[in-house]
Amino acid sequence: MDRDPEFEMASGWRGPSADPHDEQLGDNIEPTTPDSADTYDAVLVGEPYDGAVIGSPGAREGPAAIRDALAGVKTHHFDAGPIRAIGDLGTVDIPTGASVSDVQAAVRAATETVHEQETIPIFLGGDNSLTYPNAGPLLDREETVGVVSLDAHLDCRAVRGEPSSGAPYRQLWEAGLDEMAVLGARHFETSTVYAEYLREQGGEVVTAEEVGDDPVEATDRALAAVETDHLYVSVDIDVLDATAAPGVSAPTPGGITTRELFRLVRLLASVDRLAGFEVVETAPPLCPDGRTADAAARTVAHVLSVLGGEPA
Amino acid sequence: MDRDPEFEMASGWRGPSADPHDEQLGDNIEPTTPDSADTYDAVLVGEPYDGAVIGSPGAREGPAAIRDALAGVKTHHFDAGPIRAIGDLGTVDIPTGASVSDVQAAVRAATETVHEQETIPIFLGGDNSLTYPNAGPLLDREETVGVVSLDAHLDCRAVRGEPSSGAPYRQLWEAGLDEMAVLGARHFETSTVYAEYLREQGGEVVTAEEVGDDPVEATDRALAAVETDHLYVSVDIDVLDATAAPGVSAPTPGGITTRELFRLVRLLASVDRLAGFEVVETAPPLCPDGRTADAAARTVAHVLSVLGGEPA
Amino acid sequence: MDRDPEFEMASGWRGPSADPHDEQLGDNIEPTTPDSADTYDAVLVGEPYDGAVIGSPGAREGPAAIRDALAGVKTHHFDAGPIRAIGDLGTVDIPTGASVSDVQAAVRAATETVHEQETIPIFLGGDNSLTYPNAGPLLDREETVGVVSLDAHLDCRAVRGEPSSGAPYRQLWEAGLDEMAVLGARHFETSTVYAEYLREQGGEVVTAEEVGDDPVEATDRALAAVETDHLYVSVDIDVLDATAAPGVSAPTPGGITTRELFRLVRLLASVDRLAGFEVVETAPPLCPDGRTADAAARTVAHVLSVLGGEPA
Amino acid sequence: MDRDPEFEMASGWRGPSADPHDEQLGDNIEPTTPDSADTYDAVLVGEPYDGAVIGSPGAREGPAAIRDALAGVKTHHFDAGPIRAIGDLGTVDIPTGASVSDVQAAVRAATETVHEQETIPIFLGGDNSLTYPNAGPLLDREETVGVVSLDAHLDCRAVRGEPSSGAPYRQLWEAGLDEMAVLGARHFETSTVYAEYLREQGGEVVTAEEVGDDPVEATDRALAAVETDHLYVSVDIDVLDATAAPGVSAPTPGGITTRELFRLVRLLASVDRLAGFEVVETAPPLCPDGRTADAAARTVAHVLSVLGGEPA
Amino acid sequence: MDRDPEFEMASGWRGPSADPHDEQLGDNIEPTTPDSADTYDAVLVGEPYDGAVIGSPGAREGPAAIRDALAGVKTHHFDAGPIRAIGDLGTVDIPTGASVSDVQAAVRAATETVHEQETIPIFLGGDNSLTYPNAGPLLDREETVGVVSLDAHLDCRAVRGEPSSGAPYRQLWEAGLDEMAVLGARHFETSTVYAEYLREQGGEVVTAEEVGDDPVEATDRALAAVETDHLYVSVDIDVLDATAAPGVSAPTPGGITTRELFRLVRLLASVDRLAGFEVVETAPPLCPDGRTADAAARTVAHVLSVLGGEPA
Amino acid sequence: MDRDPEFEMASGWRGPSADPHDEQLGDNIEPTTPDSADTYDAVLVGEPYDGAVIGSPGAREGPAAIRDALAGVKTHHFDAGPIRAIGDLGTVDIPTGASVSDVQAAVRAATETVHEQETIPIFLGGDNSLTYPNAGPLLDREETVGVVSLDAHLDCRAVRGEPSSGAPYRQLWEAGLDEMAVLGARHFETSTVYAEYLREQGGEVVTAEEVGDDPVEATDRALAAVETDHLYVSVDIDVLDATAAPGVSAPTPGGITTRELFRLVRLLASVDRLAGFEVVETAPPLCPDGRTADAAARTVAHVLSVLGGEPA
Ligand SMILES: [Mn+2]
Ligand SMILES: [Mn+2]
Ligand SMILES: [Mn+2]
Ligand SMILES: [Mn+2]
Ligand SMILES: [Mn+2]
Ligand SMILES: [Mn+2]
Ligand SMILES: [Mn+2]
Ligand SMILES: [Mn+2]
Ligand SMILES: [Mn+2]
Ligand SMILES: [Mn+2]
Ligand SMILES: [Mn+2]
Ligand SMILES: [Mn+2]
Repeated sequence: MDRDPEFEMASGWRGPSADPHDEQLGDNIEPTTPDSADTYDAVLVGEPYDGAVIGSPGAREGPAAIRDALAGVKTHHFDAGPIRAIGDLGTVDIPTGASVSDVQAAVRAATETVHEQETIPIFLGGDNSLTYPNAGPLLDREETVGVVSLDAHLDCRAVRGEPSSGAPYRQLWEAGLDEMAVLGARHFETSTVYAEYLREQGGEVVTAEEVGDDPVEATDRALAAVETDHLYVSVDIDVLDATAAPGVSAPTPGGITTRELFRLVRLLASVDRLAGFEVVETAPPLCPDGRTADAAARTVAHVLSVLGGEPA
Repeated sequence: MDRDPEFEMASGWRGPSADPHDEQLGDNIEPTTPDSADTYDAVLVGEPYDGAVIGSPGAREGPAAIRDALAGVKTHHFDAGPIRAIGDLGTVDIPTGASVSDVQAAVRAATETVHEQETIPIFLGGDNSLTYPNAGPLLDREETVGVVSLDAHLDCRAVRGEPSSGAPYRQLWEAGLDEMAVLGARHFETSTVYAEYLREQGGEVVTAEEVGDDPVEATDRALAAVETDHLYVSVDIDVLDATAAPGVSAPTPGGITTRELFRLVRLLASVDRLAGFEVVETAPPLCPDGRTADAAARTVAHVLSVLGGEPA
Repeated sequence: MDRDPEFEMASGWRGPSADPHDEQLGDNIEPTTPDSADTYDAVLVGEPYDGAVIGSPGAREGPAAIRDALAGVKTHHFDAGPIRAIGDLGTVDIPTGASVSDVQAAVRAATETVHEQETIPIFLGGDNSLTYPNAGPLLDREETVGVVSLDAHLDCRAVRGEPSSGAPYRQLWEAGLDEMAVLGARHFETSTVYAEYLREQGGEVVTAEEVGDDPVEATDRALAAVETDHLYVSVDIDVLDATAAPGVSAPTPGGITTRELFRLVRLLASVDRLAGFEVVETAPPLCPDGRTADAAARTVAHVLSVLGGEPA
Repeated sequence: MDRDPEFEMASGWRGPSADPHDEQLGDNIEPTTPDSADTYDAVLVGEPYDGAVIGSPGAREGPAAIRDALAGVKTHHFDAGPIRAIGDLGTVDIPTGASVSDVQAAVRAATETVHEQETIPIFLGGDNSLTYPNAGPLLDREETVGVVSLDAHLDCRAVRGEPSSGAPYRQLWEAGLDEMAVLGARHFETSTVYAEYLREQGGEVVTAEEVGDDPVEATDRALAAVETDHLYVSVDIDVLDATAAPGVSAPTPGGITTRELFRLVRLLASVDRLAGFEVVETAPPLCPDGRTADAAARTVAHVLSVLGGEPA
Repeated sequence: MDRDPEFEMASGWRGPSADPHDEQLGDNIEPTTPDSADTYDAVLVGEPYDGAVIGSPGAREGPAAIRDALAGVKTHHFDAGPIRAIGDLGTVDIPTGASVSDVQAAVRAATETVHEQETIPIFLGGDNSLTYPNAGPLLDREETVGVVSLDAHLDCRAVRGEPSSGAPYRQLWEAGLDEMAVLGARHFETSTVYAEYLREQGGEVVTAEEVGDDPVEATDRALAAVETDHLYVSVDIDVLDATAAPGVSAPTPGGITTRELFRLVRLLASVDRLAGFEVVETAPPLCPDGRTADAAARTVAHVLSVLGGEPA
Repeated sequence: MDRDPEFEMASGWRGPSADPHDEQLGDNIEPTTPDSADTYDAVLVGEPYDGAVIGSPGAREGPAAIRDALAGVKTHHFDAGPIRAIGDLGTVDIPTGASVSDVQAAVRAATETVHEQETIPIFLGGDNSLTYPNAGPLLDREETVGVVSLDAHLDCRAVRGEPSSGAPYRQLWEAGLDEMAVLGARHFETSTVYAEYLREQGGEVVTAEEVGDDPVEATDRALAAVETDHLYVSVDIDVLDATAAPGVSAPTPGGITTRELFRLVRLLASVDRLAGFEVVETAPPLCPDGRTADAAARTVAHVLSVLGGEPA
């Protein structure tokens, strides 16, 4: 099996259980290559980069920590049954010390290959600037493309010089994005000019407060605003409340619970037109007890239980 | 007053308040013996043992920390009024360095005496392997026996060699348990074979997600599945979300809140056929700020406000 | 511009953003004096004092930490639009080493001046004993005065010797308070005699559990019980669950979430008869990651988005 | 046995050991009264007060934490043999909410009684403002009085209004102190005017750096500067390096090690003219893992091994 | 290559470096079997057990954490040059849930095989009760056997029922140990009866204070007291000061520094008659930032730089 | 006063003291420009960049945290007297998102201007890759140039692609550095090939162990190896032991104490040929209690007490 030069092989897929009856997610992950990726309903892609973070960094260690936590998770969802085999493309090779735009370009070279396959890529970030190369290749398609972004922030900052992790959706809108909804946004975390910018583009904002009132209705509202042919779903783990995800560059209160996040991603992953998924901004050095990576890993597991769950 | 040789006396029941108008739970706890236990609606039993834990240990320090927190809690529940006098049988003498099955046998010698009294024992663990000796004596009765287990996990592992804290319900089923419901279970925390095992026995699983949707209905579903003559209620404190109970051997996100847990135990403690209650897996060394023991103590207080509350 | 001798000037109102498009709350805070305070819909008043705390101290550092967090918050509320200019009266000069009653008297000299202005004072505590001088001057008015207190505790202790942070409402009742509701109170945190005292005065208790069931209805119940001409709203940040606000002298589980608190204060701040607001008991040294001050700051921001929000 | 009304009884002198061969310090502490104090070579006095702290408070919880740690320490010093019985006068009753000077006066009423006895009082603080009432009564004697202060700071601030924990030695000098040496002082922690003040009084400064070079010679230098009839020794636990004592209001690097501190106090306690000893500024809420109180407790144990050690 | 059934294979020997010029210890570790162990100057043996700990447990996770830290350490010692290839026997299979004496017997079955080889075993604990089976097989030899124990404690407790981690040297003395020295012992950590017991056996105690005065002389004194044919060296990592090794069941101040420990073990490892080495009591769950395991790993590296260093 | 476009003005130079007799370093810092820098014996330069760190990042927040701590330090050194006025050039403008080599070039444009002045620049990093632009301009002079680097590591890695924080001295050697000594280096932290590289260049290595044996002699050995016309002194704060400086990308045990570091930098700063000084690698997000920045700030204060101390 030849490996793609842009990827380093993932290793260490092995949960800590000693009980031979246990089936852990690590047991069902199979290393694969872009060429064979379509054998799987979904493939994992690691992106260890945080050079575009404005606040406290650390997200570069996210993919390793999420993989560690994911390896030990059991495959069983009580309603959907066990998660089937999943492919793993390894880790995108990030050029060391390069500028943000050069990193975005290098990552995009890898993600383009991935999006060509008939499978759902699940990107493990890394900071939010990776959303641009992760979702960008979809914009080259002829059909319409939309994003549902679960984030405390709108991330539509104007780019001055190099792009930052607060700007990926500005970059995507400028590259031709058709529709977008932000789910779980917090008041007082985005400036008025950027809130207005997003509304002018036709973007929808569903607040964390509204998710708390009725998670299903909130998701419906987001999906109603993004009726595009292809749907990309992004989870900035800071959409979680500061108590649930302290390991992000700027934890904020008033956020959603892990229980709500898991429900939201299951609802979103069930949408037919899903073309890609990512979880970004998990910064393990900022979270001594590991709860942020634990939450990120189970977010991925809930998505996999829809994409790669036991067929009915 | 003669003491039972299997128990060491509890001490230090004295809350920190200096206000003479305060009535703290510590003021209403009275040392007692198995012989006089039926003077009280409920009696406390400490079980400082964690030798059967697979993950991080520490639960052996649970009883002392829960008692400390409980001593300082005020007796007043706004709806049920103050908690009346409660008996305290002290601490079960755990043989040092013994095997898990020998410890289970030694603990069971003590719990058998307790269950013979007309009172509700409230066991303060200690790890979840204690559930077997805590509930086990009930299975010797002629009537049917069921358990409602509030736990993130199903704890039905097959026993290989010595039993672990992940196996008590397997031990109970094999000893004749009639019915069981798990309330607050988390997806991806139990392997498929064990989920199937429990379903084959007729056990019911109510997830943490379902508790969040409607705590009262979730409890009703659990109780409807356990219509036995005697009901044992077990709280593995890891049923709480990882944010609320970091001091457990394996904290997991997606769990229930303390507010929900307090409501659940009040509903369950109101059931006539209640024959025993326990709170297990509180591991103080894993929780520097003490919030896990604080939550466990108030869980017990809510139960006491039903069992030993002011008569209407 | 002459300064009042009782206030020290606030400084450091400057958020950390480097994006020129950002509008942070720090940009819209304008130093002012009691004489000019009525130019603003609301004015901030810092009160760095914790000499009356019975448990762990630290609230004296609350005002500085809340201001720091507030400076960096964006002004934009998705529904109410940006917060307009707000006045800042600086910090009340607390006599060092004085007795609690002397401090209360000294603070009251300053708050009387503030309440004479046509503006809503927003006090940043400091411990809960400050509520007495903060709300006290309202009792000199001819109309009726009530308080809605968001607190885990009732804070109606009998005063023995010097008053403590557990006694401000006893002091207010004795000084002529007409009505009061406690919103978010926790079971087992107040002794029976004090719960009875409050009921005898006609006070209303709405528990945290009831807030969780329906925040809007819970607030309505509190407001229905306080139909006075003037309304003072107090937030003891320990009304939050222990997970959300570890930085208080006695964190307790079973509390409300930040999402609920933000909604509650918006509802309360919308009441016409509002005469003053405070947030007390934020103790930064007890909260290494700053989440308690972050929550307190956003509580203030939500109030400001009602009081000083963009006119419709 | 009648109790002095100014003292509350100490309780909980009981170490955690379960080995019947263990002799812990808690076993050898005997409650006593001022009248019977001269039965003991040394008596303990708790002083839970921190109202004069300028930085982060918490020292009010020092006496309880030091006692807890001391209870579990074994009595055995390898060279001096076991510590004999020690008296315990309990806790000085601190007036709640009083001004600093009123607290100093109230404490002094109690310490005067203690100093009248033929025993060495060991004060467990509490903040450094207590040094004034702790050592003050000695100045009423006809002989000369000196202090060796182990402190990162000189604590000679001018008193403006109420005294603070940075001013006790200014108060003592003004009340007639004859000589003083500061041992373990840090550069850049005291302003020039105060360093000059101390030198003008004839005070000696031995830096932490010099202690590191040769602890015995450093102690000799301090003692040579304080050749008074009576010697009072004060340990502000912040004399320790910030790594060893994080639980103080202002931890500073460049300090002495616990190993050095233990040697220093043994040397100082061996001086015949010793008239009193104190350890102040231990603030448990600022030290989650308890290492500061552990160090303070063993500091006291080393002193006791000289004062109340096995006779040769 | 056949594996011994008592050992599980070690895995994950791979440091985190991405620089191809780096030589990390993980690169030079080679899995081996008891039969081939004499190919190596030293072999590693993992012992994940903490069932005999009286205080806070966690040492069962020590071997994995030490191995992780060791994998990333560079091989280069500035004076001794790079460490050569080292063998790794993997992890001793600990019977789950067994009594302490059964575990000691099971471990001894494995260590006997290891001691038969011409190599120096380096045991990675696990708790201090493992010293008995680790050093025990040496007592079957005809020559004399002695131990130098670097420990804050003497660990000579009388065994009541099952042995604890405070009793291994009592067990060894009773099994025929000839001589022993404790290096780094702390005052007030061992009761008089046990200090006397050790002296009666002819054991030597060199305190941490004496190590601080002159590490080389202190080591010489320990070695002078243990002039046996075979020398076993044990490091209980709690010999380090509480600041350097918080991750032990009972951290104590007044201890030695890492710099001193590294020197001590290099001196001891240079002794010809060395027959075995261990590092015990590293408890990762009690040390969030990993510094204890980091120190334990480098302790092993310093030993290896003597045993398996580049030949001169 | 015109400002240089490459610098942003430093702000917030104001210590927390309220005592008018206090002289804090913040009071003596005066904003200046490159043109006027030679008015001062030393000038501060902030460099908030950590894009070249291989391990955990965070050093970008170093300059702000060091300045905060420095502002509150008193000016008084017991032997050298108070520090005189110091200039502050503010913060070098770091291009956002640029590659490491572009950042190094941009920083160098600023540092060249600084080195042209007759003053000693004191650079506050930032990561260790900044050493290349900080010291680089000195190599353009005609005289010889040497560096004494206080670092746990040798930082001579070969540059592959972009330079990292482990490579600055390789870059300097390749640009013409004449001599170099590393003071405080740790065993097992640098690979053999790099240790050999440094020796081939004629570099000297003095280990942390040797510093512990005799700090003055160790410094002498370093200075004897660097007898160049100009001397640049660099402190990577990870030269401190892991207990004293946890806030670095890779804390390691066996390091030097703060007391030793302060002595070392005073000795080095007293050398006539000193041409520049830096302290790098302080990463505040990795150090919750701020002790690393506290140590870095006092390191700078000790240097200033030599360079800008009171004239004799
Ligand atoms: Mn975000
Ligand atoms: Mn984002
Ligand atoms: Mn569980
Ligand atoms: Mn369980
Ligand atoms: Mn409260
Ligand atoms: Mn309150
Ligand atoms: Mn001090
Ligand atoms: Mn002091
Ligand atoms: Mn030990
Ligand atoms: Mn030991
Ligand atoms: Mn370094
Ligand atoms: Mn470096």
